[in-house]
This record gives sequence, C-alpha cells and structure tokens, in this order.
Amino acid sequence: MRCPLIHLNLHIIMSDQGIWLTTLKAETPQKGFELAIKLSRMGVKYTQPDMEVLHRLRPKYAEDPMALTAASQVIAIHYQTIAAANNYWK
Amino acid sequence: MRCPLIHLNLHIIMSDQGIWLTTLKAETPQKGFELAIKLSRMGVKYTQPDMEVLHRLRPKYAEDPMALTAASQVIAIHYQTIAAANNYWK
Amino acid sequence: MRCPLIHLNLHIIMSDQGIWLTTLKAETPQKGFELAIKLSRMGVKYTQPDMEVLHRLRPKYAEDPMALTAASQVIAIHYQTIAAANNYWK
Amino acid sequence: MRCPLIHLNLHIIMSDQGIWLTTLKAETPQKGFELAIKLSRMGVKYTQPDMEVLHRLRPKYAEDPMALTAASQVIAIHYQTIAAANNYWK
Amino acid sequence: MRCPLIHLNLHIIMSDQGIWLTTLKAETPQKGFELAIKLSRMGVKYTQPDMEVLHRLRPKYAEDPMALTAASQVIAIHYQTIAAANNYWK
Amino acid sequence: MRCPLIHLNLHIIMSDQGIWLTTLKAETPQKGFELAIKLSRMGVKYTQPDMEVLHRLRPKYAEDPMALTAASQVIAIHYQTIAAANNYWK
Repeated sequence: MRCPLIHLNLHIIMSDQGIWLTTLKAETPQKGFELAIKLSRMGVKYTQPDMEVLHRLRPKYAEDPMALTAASQVIAIHYQTIAAANNYWK
Repeated sequence: MRCPLIHLNLHIIMSDQGIWLTTLKAETPQKGFELAIKLSRMGVKYTQPDMEVLHRLRPKYAEDPMALTAASQVIAIHYQTIAAANNYWK
Repeated sequence: MRCPLIHLNLHIIMSDQGIWLTTLKAETPQKGFELAIKLSRMGVKYTQPDMEVLHRLRPKYAEDPMALTAASQVIAIHYQTIAAANNYWK
Repeated sequence: MRCPLIHLNLHIIMSDQGIWLTTLKAETPQKGFELAIKLSRMGVKYTQPDMEVLHRLRPKYAEDPMALTAASQVIAIHYQTIAAANNYWK
Repeated sequence: MRCPLIHLNLHIIMSDQGIWLTTLKAETPQKGFELAIKLSRMGVKYTQPDMEVLHRLRPKYAEDPMALTAASQVIAIHYQTIAAANNYWK
Repeated sequence: MRCPLIHLNLHIIMSDQGIWLTTLKAETPQKGFELAIKLSRMGVKYTQPDMEVLHRLRPKYAEDPMALTAASQVIAIHYQTIAAANNYWK
C-alpha cells in the first residue's frame, strides 16, 4: 500500500477515475450532504486507489467509533463547501 | 463492518435514508445547534448504516472523553454551516 | 454509555436541555469566547447526556495535554462562528 | 482533574479569569499571530483552570511532536478568526 | 528524518521544489479536487523532502483506515480554498 | 519541556522571536503556500521555543506518516487564511 499523501502518481490515478464531478450544485440540502459524502469517499480513493487494499481494510475498525466520527468530520468539512456553493439553499 | 469512507454503496445507502433534511433554516440558534447534531449523526449513519453494528459499538469508549470531544468538534463544524445559512440569526 | 454520535434519541435529549441559547450576540470578544466554551460543552452534553457517566469520566486524562488541546480546538472552531456573528466586534 | 469540556463550572471559572480580551484588532499580522496563541492558551486554561494540574502536565509529551503539531493547529484556527477581524491587514 | 514542522531549512527546501503552483484556478470542480490533492501532497513533501524516507514510509499504515481518513480531511480543507478561488464554479 | 499551550511565558517568548511576519501578501499562490508552511512552523516554535528540545524531537516519528499528514493539515488551514488575504490571486 502507498502511504497516504506520499508519492502518489497523480497523473495515472487521476486519469483512472474518469469524470465523477461536474458541479457542486445540489437540488436540496440533503442531496448536497450526499455529495459531501461522495467527495469524502473520493478523497480516500484517490489516496489509495488499490481496490484490493481497500477491500482488505474493510473489517478493520469494526469496533472503533473514533473512525466513524473522523469520517463524519470529513463529511462536515466538505458540506461547508457544498452549502456555500449552493448559497445555503436560501 | 465496512471501513469508514471506503467502498460505500452510496446509491443503496442513500435511498435507504428517506428524506431527512429539507432546509438548513432553523428558528433559533439553539434549534440550529440541534440540527448540527443531527447532521453529525447522519454522517455516521451514512458511513455505517448497519444498525446492529452501531448498537454493538455503543458501550465502547465509555471511558473516553476524547471521543466525546471529537463528537463535539464535528458538531462545531456543522454549526458553522448552519449559522451561516441563517445569517447568524442577526 | 451511548457511543458518541451513534443512535442518539435526539428528541428526548433535546427537550431535556431546556432553553440555553437564544442568541450568538456577545457584548465583548471575551464574552464571545466564553460563549464558544459553552457551545463546546453543550456539544458534549447532548452527545452524552448521562450526568453520572460524565462525572465518572472526570478523573480521566488527568495527565493528558492532548485532551486539553483538543478541547481548545473545539472552542476555536465555535469562536469562528461567534466572531462572525458579531462582525468580529469591529 | 476535571475532564476537558465536561461539567465546567463556567460561571466561577469565567469570573476568575478577569478581563483578558477586549479586541480582536492587532497592529500587525505578527501581533495577530501572537493573539491567536493567547486565545489557544486561554482555551486550555478555561478548560483546566487548576494551575497545579497544569504545572504537573508540563513534562509530559516532551518527546511528542504530535502534541506540538496539534497546538500549532489550534493556533492556525484562531489565526483565521483574527486575520478576518483585521481584514487580513490589507 | 526531520520531525514534522520542526526546524525546516525552508529556504533550501523551497528552492528545491521548483515552480509547481501558479494558479488556484481550475477548469472544473473535479480538476479543482485534484489540485486539492496536489496541495495536500506538497504539504507532506515540503515537511519531509527526503524522498528516501518517504519511500520507506510507504508500506506503513497499510491496514490503517484512519490514515486514509486523515488524508481525505486534508484534501477537504484545501478543497474549500480552491472552491472559493473558483467562485464555486457557479 | 513545557507542555503545548500550557503556561507559556508569552511575553518573553514573543520578544525572543524578533520580527518575522509583516504581511500576509504573497506574490504567487506558491509563495503563499510557503508562507503557510512558515506560519505552521512558527506555531510550533512559539509553543516550544527550546531549540535543544526541538532538536531532540527530530528523529521521532521517523516512521509515522500520521505526523506528516497532521503537519500537512496545519499548512492547509493557514493556506486558507493566506489565500483569502490575497483574494485567491484572482
């Protein structure tokens, strides 16, 4: 496994992902939240593109609420961006 | 358990949640705070939708103030978003 | 103890807290800072409303500056919100 | 020691601190940075006002760059607030 | 290895990196996301410019979703900056 | 060693640092990034001004990508401030 944020071969990885994000616009606050989850997940996938490693990691932290809380935090940060992009659905 | 942020089957999970967020508007700063808690919690629930796992995790960290502090931090981040959405209730 | 951010019975907990936040306005930057501390603390209290558990947790981390630093960080995040709400007391 | 963010007797603690913050204005970006450090430190002091405990904690983490990095992070968050309050010294 | 954020010989390191960032503009939200990844990675590279050390670190945390989540968080913070720089691609 | 954020003798430390920051303006996005690194590093240096301790800490975390990721995160937070100060180099 590559170590997170170290020595990514970004050009290859990026071309591997295809087009997955064309707009930050979301119809509703909830759809915006779900987009924030997608961004959080893609941050992981770009960092560790080896799907086999990702599969192997699944059972880990099964008993670790800290990991779930950390995931929720990444989502919260992305949600700030998306809410701003949608003018907070005002 | 799925590992946080790894390999979510987002389409299925998202359709499972129903409609739970239609607006970021909140009548008062306190109701906005409570909405921030809801968003924080939903970040966990989308990440780990298996309720049985969530139940099993409950007793964990019973002695861990760090986990409570981390939870309070996620709430604080979402509260920034909600406060902005409500023009800080000015 | 309930695990942070997992499975809160929000409706009951929220009605238990009474009215504790009616405005983000603070007379001075210092009073705003103290309000940020209050918000940080309430994030913990909503997450773990069982006062007996909270009491039991007190002696923990007595030797842990990391926990104090983490608490200071939550306060800093809320202070951003409150400072914005008060137009930075300009 | 009280656990961070749990069960602070805020009224007593706050009156104990005296007046320490009257403005977020700083003459220069550097003085603003130093004010951010002060805010970070006060977040700790409000959370753990027992000076004897704080003294006892000093030698800890002597070998822990993570703690220093975490401290630097709290400062960075407060610096965002102070820089905004000073219109980024533009 | 130098300890993160401690005692960087910044002048030498910075001149070593060449020109790698001339604009925060990105054509699409996805390209902006990929720029955020680049910034996250450069934050590591400036902090630890010894490529041999970076190579040695790779196999570590192979089983650590927390590290992947932390990486995703850094990306999320940089993405806020880049999205703002691009007016959220509105 | 003093514990991070605890009991800094700020007046002495601050006068020890000399003038190191006179503006948040940076000519290019890259120079702004390098300024963010400097701010991150100064946050550590103010917190632990004892250079001998800092030297002793260097070899630590040699195998710890988490520490590098955490450093990258502090840089990201400061970069938000600096980018805003430079109107995102628009």
